Amino acid sequence: MTGRGRFVSFEGIDGSGKSTQARLLAERLQAQGRDVVLTREPGGSPGAEEIRALLLTGAPDRWSAETEILLFTAARRDHLERRIDPALAKGQVVICDRFADSTRVYQGATRGDLRGLVDELHALMIGREPDLTILIDIDPETGWRRATARPGGEARFEEFGAGMQARLRAGFLALAEEAPERFRVIDGRGSEAEVAEAVARAAAEALA
Amino acid sequence: MTGRGRFVSFEGIDGSGKSTQARLLAERLQAQGRDVVLTREPGGSPGAEEIRALLLTGAPDRWSAETEILLFTAARRDHLERRIDPALAKGQVVICDRFADSTRVYQGATRGDLRGLVDELHALMIGREPDLTILIDIDPETGWRRATARPGGEARFEEFGAGMQARLRAGFLALAEEAPERFRVIDGRGSEAEVAEAVARAAAEALA
Repeated sequence: MTGRGRFVSFEGIDGSGKSTQARLLAERLQAQGRDVVLTREPGGSPGAEEIRALLLTGAPDRWSAETEILLFTAARRDHLERRIDPALAKGQVVICDRFADSTRVYQGATRGDLRGLVDELHALMIGREPDLTILIDIDPETGWRRATARPGGEARFEEFGAGMQARLRAGFLALAEEAPERFRVIDGRGSEAEVAEAVARAAAEALA
Repeated sequence: MTGRGRFVSFEGIDGSGKSTQARLLAERLQAQGRDVVLTREPGGSPGAEEIRALLLTGAPDRWSAETEILLFTAARRDHLERRIDPALAKGQVVICDRFADSTRVYQGATRGDLRGLVDELHALMIGREPDLTILIDIDPETGWRRATARPGGEARFEEFGAGMQARLRAGFLALAEEAPERFRVIDGRGSEAEVAEAVARAAAEALA
């Protein structure tokens, strides 16, 4: 393939199945002969993975929300320059597990007053949205049952942060309403295969 | 002391003597009974020091100029929140070896088109200037002789990057003209004691 590729992001709350679905779509497109790059945030390039380590280790209050947003944006800028943009320039399909919408929603759910700052910083330093964002929508209870079914995943529903997960879900759905031209909301409650079919249909339509 | 403190930054090219002069001013003010915090950038707080390590190690092209600016700004935000602002709130005098002007000048000297981006990011995420910025001005030749006189400091003048040092010096002087209300330009060619006297006079006047 030549020419400009396509950029697809997957978003959703914990336990929604988005990482699995991102991988399944990548495999399906590869089987169809498309040149696919599967990546994730935070991280996705060597420099961004080092920034990810700074973000995900240490005490929860290690960084303020504002410093965190700057570090996420630095990691995203590196990932975009070193991995996403070169792949798109070669005509590849880039499938990314989380992108800027996660920063908007996770910061917005904890510090609503920072949403404007996230958007301004994005406009200044990233200035890019995916061609297609697949939101795997699921209720927090189902997400919790799935997350705890993973090896070692035992926790009470309250510890899962049910209230926070509900706010995150509402945040993602609100973003999808703000930008209907690039969002496709997929019901994540079906079987893995059923959801994968729905994702494939949405992707085929948007990437045609 | 109570009430709001004062924030003093030192700027200058390599070999200008600014780090020495920052320390001498801190010692002089302490001897006068003022409560002084001496700090530096990049770094100055535990989190910012970790970001500093990411910035100063690895290959020279490890980060793009844009990612570098984001990392410097993240480190500065952490330093400001965790160290500078709390000290100022306690009425302390904060003396900082380099601050935002270094980002403006170093980025501007290498990528002139990024100066606007540095300023926008500063306005969005930092929004603070020192009460007083002392620019120790020196010609690159004198800076080079001093830097090579340090233990282990042997290099040819060309290796010192004479052209780059001249552009950095011009950048700092241009900033001082842009913001004369907070800048004091001190001739750095005299002896350490002579320069320290001139710095002390400028600080006394501005911090009275």
